[in-house]
Amino acid sequence: MKIVKGFPADPEGIYQLNVINLMKHAIRNFSRQEIVSRKINGTLFRYTYTESYERMQRLANALKSIGVKVGDRVGVLAWNHHQHYEIYYGVPGTGAVMVSLNLRLAPQDLSYIINHSGTKFIIIDEDLINIAESVVSLCKALKGFVVITEKDLNDIETKLKPVYNYEDLLNKATPIFEWPNLDENSAYAACYTTGTTGKPKGVYYSHRNVYIQALMFAAQLPVRVNDVVFQLVPMFHVLGWSKPQAATYAGAKLVFSGRWNLDDLKELTDIMVKEKVTVSGAVPAVFMAMLEFIRKMENKPDLTGTRLICGGSEPPIALMRGFWDETGAEIIHSYGSTEAMAITTLNFFKPWLEKELSEEELWELKKKQGTIMSGLDIKIVDEEGNELPHDGTSSGELLLRGPWITRSYYNAPETQISFTEDGYFKTGDAGSLDSEGYLKITDRIKDVIKSGGEWISSIDMENALVSHPGVLEAAVIGIPHPKWDERPLALVVLREGFESIKKDEIHEHLGNTFAKWQLPDEILFVKSIPRTTVGKLNKKVMRMKYKDIYS
Amino acid sequence: MKIVKGFPADPEGIYQLNVINLMKHAIRNFSRQEIVSRKINGTLFRYTYTESYERMQRLANALKSIGVKVGDRVGVLAWNHHQHYEIYYGVPGTGAVMVSLNLRLAPQDLSYIINHSGTKFIIIDEDLINIAESVVSLCKALKGFVVITEKDLNDIETKLKPVYNYEDLLNKATPIFEWPNLDENSAYAACYTTGTTGKPKGVYYSHRNVYIQALMFAAQLPVRVNDVVFQLVPMFHVLGWSKPQAATYAGAKLVFSGRWNLDDLKELTDIMVKEKVTVSGAVPAVFMAMLEFIRKMENKPDLTGTRLICGGSEPPIALMRGFWDETGAEIIHSYGSTEAMAITTLNFFKPWLEKELSEEELWELKKKQGTIMSGLDIKIVDEEGNELPHDGTSSGELLLRGPWITRSYYNAPETQISFTEDGYFKTGDAGSLDSEGYLKITDRIKDVIKSGGEWISSIDMENALVSHPGVLEAAVIGIPHPKWDERPLALVVLREGFESIKKDEIHEHLGNTFAKWQLPDEILFVKSIPRTTVGKLNKKVMRMKYKDIYS
Repeated sequence: MKIVKGFPADPEGIYQLNVINLMKHAIRNFSRQEIVSRKINGTLFRYTYTESYERMQRLANALKSIGVKVGDRVGVLAWNHHQHYEIYYGVPGTGAVMVSLNLRLAPQDLSYIINHSGTKFIIIDEDLINIAESVVSLCKALKGFVVITEKDLNDIETKLKPVYNYEDLLNKATPIFEWPNLDENSAYAACYTTGTTGKPKGVYYSHRNVYIQALMFAAQLPVRVNDVVFQLVPMFHVLGWSKPQAATYAGAKLVFSGRWNLDDLKELTDIMVKEKVTVSGAVPAVFMAMLEFIRKMENKPDLTGTRLICGGSEPPIALMRGFWDETGAEIIHSYGSTEAMAITTLNFFKPWLEKELSEEELWELKKKQGTIMSGLDIKIVDEEGNELPHDGTSSGELLLRGPWITRSYYNAPETQISFTEDGYFKTGDAGSLDSEGYLKITDRIKDVIKSGGEWISSIDMENALVSHPGVLEAAVIGIPHPKWDERPLALVVLREGFESIKKDEIHEHLGNTFAKWQLPDEILFVKSIPRTTVGKLNKKVMRMKYKDIYS
Repeated sequence: MKIVKGFPADPEGIYQLNVINLMKHAIRNFSRQEIVSRKINGTLFRYTYTESYERMQRLANALKSIGVKVGDRVGVLAWNHHQHYEIYYGVPGTGAVMVSLNLRLAPQDLSYIINHSGTKFIIIDEDLINIAESVVSLCKALKGFVVITEKDLNDIETKLKPVYNYEDLLNKATPIFEWPNLDENSAYAACYTTGTTGKPKGVYYSHRNVYIQALMFAAQLPVRVNDVVFQLVPMFHVLGWSKPQAATYAGAKLVFSGRWNLDDLKELTDIMVKEKVTVSGAVPAVFMAMLEFIRKMENKPDLTGTRLICGGSEPPIALMRGFWDETGAEIIHSYGSTEAMAITTLNFFKPWLEKELSEEELWELKKKQGTIMSGLDIKIVDEEGNELPHDGTSSGELLLRGPWITRSYYNAPETQISFTEDGYFKTGDAGSLDSEGYLKITDRIKDVIKSGGEWISSIDMENALVSHPGVLEAAVIGIPHPKWDERPLALVVLREGFESIKKDEIHEHLGNTFAKWQLPDEILFVKSIPRTTVGKLNKKVMRMKYKDIYS
């Protein structure tokens, strides 16, 4: 995009937005604020911002001592804990790039990411060593491993080498580090996005990107010093959805969840109540399980004022209403992607809508993705790239641009097709924007079903299918059709005890929310639905398998 | 300051922070939000963000039509109203620079600013035309005047020419403007600072400066869509102390005070109550007068949750307590300067201090300037430039650096002495920072009295003097002394009816808060105290006049 030079205001060197400054200023103003971290044995570790910052400086010196230099890439394979928080500042603060490694990826993808990014060192939780071991023979450039553990290194068996003990390195290092004044466009971290096709693609966030998003998130949620931020989102997912940065900026209390899965939600809910959490974030499945647990509690926790950011997919009204009724906590729908550094919308009511809409209408509104965060540009475009009106019905591909949206994939040809010349990221999502600015995502562009010139949303139909009590899982795909271009096909996995359900019953159920012409011509009852390694529906495989069903 | 290049994250053109985007995004999300503007006749004009934005675009086209180009400087001489708000976006959005003209300056200073900045056009309120007329013969480069008026141009007598009618220009212009994508380091506005010595000095704020401060202020106050922001601070003063930008970013309702002076505070207080204001800002004298008025009201207004930013000088506890007790509104002490774009501190309590301190201690704490806003670097240095500890007692000159602090004066030799090589602005203020990060300004560096190697704060002593019921005004200055280097001299204007007060009584009063060695050797009872054209104590004149009194 062409940049016009105005009257120059800044003849001298411009103040660089470095993420480490979020921490430095937090220390000046909020030095005594508390950080709580759940250990693997379930106990809680506590220390202050000041103590954390001292360890960040030790970490920076330690990395220097083992040979990490400005611009080097340092991988991280770790759960949510205070050491991971130290790494968020202590690694990029030195000018190195933190490469977030998703511990759920297959060795093939993980080794690709390590090699493509040129990662030299990996900082790793002791219980994840086997993951590193599974890729080490494929990653020749790796120079060393720093293990986060409470054990002595001699008590850990591993074929990784050389290995260092995180705590030993910190103990040996000096507690003061002179942070460089980094060019703000230097990479702070890399996250790789894994789609259903092709190799993982690297998104490199600059210090400026991360710094500005922290401010925006803190301003728009808002997050303040009297907030308690619970880090549930894995910190290897898109920088933990901004919370570790925004909380630091605001000087909020931080609580790290440790290693956890859905079975730990009782314990995590307890922590949430005891530590008086006011801000957290997760995907709907996590909040669902949490709500189930809360429903069984005799004394319901009072979470009035707590804001739970919910992203990944649409939170059902029952979930949002359930939290509200049982605890007073508000679920806030949000939308994002790796390329957009996760947070691009937040669903808040405007004062005038609260006056004008009925309670039911407000709950419906909460299902939308929310308004695009101030700071970002958005366009909704049709297949020819023409901009569509913000009328709440015109649906097209969503393009995003702004101070924290990436503008390229690192060293990857996909940059050409995924970004426009004027700096927009083509999200691949289809949606509409209403006159109040609320976004509604209707589908992935490539999953939209185009029947006779009209669009049918596969996501809406899947949501309708799983709302039937007998349906466990569902997928809807578009299949080539000689007359209508494409027609929908539904794949359905039935729940135990509901095996007798037939196509007609499903059609009748869908008929409540869909027009007759939109109903899938065929409904296949299957044992399982193909998914990718990260658990997404693998529609590419399905479309291939059933491609001839209507021809 | 040396900039270290890390691993490059952003190969393509970086998204530029343009202030007009604050408005564009507000329109997308908060189009129906209301703006209220008090007209000269006292009635209230109301319109929406959308209507305002249309007029901003018309203004941009209108300016183009009369010859304003990217980089041109456009002066503004106006009160606080919706047109001034339109100018805040419509002028710099085009790439022109808005030159804020203080309508209280002498013609000599005003013409200097117009000529030094190269201002080509001036947008001016009809009732301020005489000010422009007083300088027009001194400003040969001026090319035209745009008059904000409800009258027909033919009904206005003026020797200015050419003159345009603001409303006529807007009516003739088209309502859509293609804003340029400005280099973010282009100047958004210029404010000139007038000290007690020398020529006014020009501070040019870039779009980046203004954009980032808007975010920071919105995040740290915070300002949100359900806030109602009352613009009391003159908009020609340091961009109205950030409120017109932060409110726009947040989509808050805006209320403009129109032309006003201390006699209008009854009416302004009424507006504050009726429009349900939640955020405003002013100097202590304004809030004092407002509190006096509120005290006389039969039904005290409920302003619970309202935050009143108070800057310029230290707000007395009686003022803060008065507002709190009478209305529930909180006065928040803030500190700034033209060079630092006004807002550099905000005084908030941290949750742990609210638990640990007594009520009296908290009120005392509220007198401090507050914590330095996250985002800014601060140093307290002694006369040799050595950094002093943040121990609450070590006092030295305050240096500030950050994303909205200027790093130079435009085209002025004073840049050399007022800014450090590593980008700090030397504020000229002396102060200390405590371990919790609260700043206490003790004096202007040049007004500090250095007696026998110890510092005596002239400001503290002046505050103590005027707290005596018989003292109307006071000034304390340092006078050369053969033995102690400097000794304090107090000048006091007594109130009517208190003319019999003698030195001893004043000494006794000061003895409550000052040590004996700190008391002024002489106290001169005078009829008046010299002040500058903008009303500040003119200590330079006083020091000259009394320089030999102790020798």
